[in-house]
Amino acid sequence: MTATDSPRIVRPDPARAAPVRMDGVKDARMEILVGREHGAPNFSMRHFVVAPGGHTPLHSHNYEHEVVILEGEADVTYGTSVHRVRCGDVLYVAPNEMHQFRNAGTGDFRFLCFVPTSFDCGKPTPGS
Amino acid sequence: MTATDSPRIVRPDPARAAPVRMDGVKDARMEILVGREHGAPNFSMRHFVVAPGGHTPLHSHNYEHEVVILEGEADVTYGTSVHRVRCGDVLYVAPNEMHQFRNAGTGDFRFLCFVPTSFDCGKPTPGS
Repeated sequence: MTATDSPRIVRPDPARAAPVRMDGVKDARMEILVGREHGAPNFSMRHFVVAPGGHTPLHSHNYEHEVVILEGEADVTYGTSVHRVRCGDVLYVAPNEMHQFRNAGTGDFRFLCFVPTSFDCGKPTPGS
Repeated sequence: MTATDSPRIVRPDPARAAPVRMDGVKDARMEILVGREHGAPNFSMRHFVVAPGGHTPLHSHNYEHEVVILEGEADVTYGTSVHRVRCGDVLYVAPNEMHQFRNAGTGDFRFLCFVPTSFDCGKPTPGS
């Protein structure tokens, strides 16, 4: 038991999200809602906001994503296929799969994306 | 890269959630949306449905929870204090903090709760 009096309670707010500076990203912003800076030992929760026409990078890594769609819809590239996801869907992106989220709507596409806080035997996961 | 053609895409559905059999639980159901059975190496996503008047157990464990409220409202006991949370909130429950969710509304209280897939040097986390 620690001396903490409250859990960390937050409402995801696009106004707090900062531009993602990463090759292959277009018009995407992010805020770490729960992460290493809050003491999370195992995994982190990030809020992404992708503007209409925007996308996350097409990339892969050796850890999983778990994703909760909060608003809008997107085309998810996964390996060599593409799948439409919408507000209310959750999804699992397995380690080492190429993946990308492309906003397919006319408003913001927003989602929560979870990653482990470390990978490769203890390296801090980028954006965790 | 694996031969998988699609990410696992699911919509949380109360109809699939099964009763939680655990001391101190009242009228709560759960489904593992992403977990060890789906190959997740680091953490799991579970969907909880707590009926009006119901609650999760008052307990603690040495790993964190990260929680996304999907519907309704609840009083969260955390250590020695109580906090109201509502649909749209996310929260972080630190390791070793006593915690409990008590439905404070007239409809279902639903949330996603994430846990690591293992703890104590490799033991499978219950319900992961």
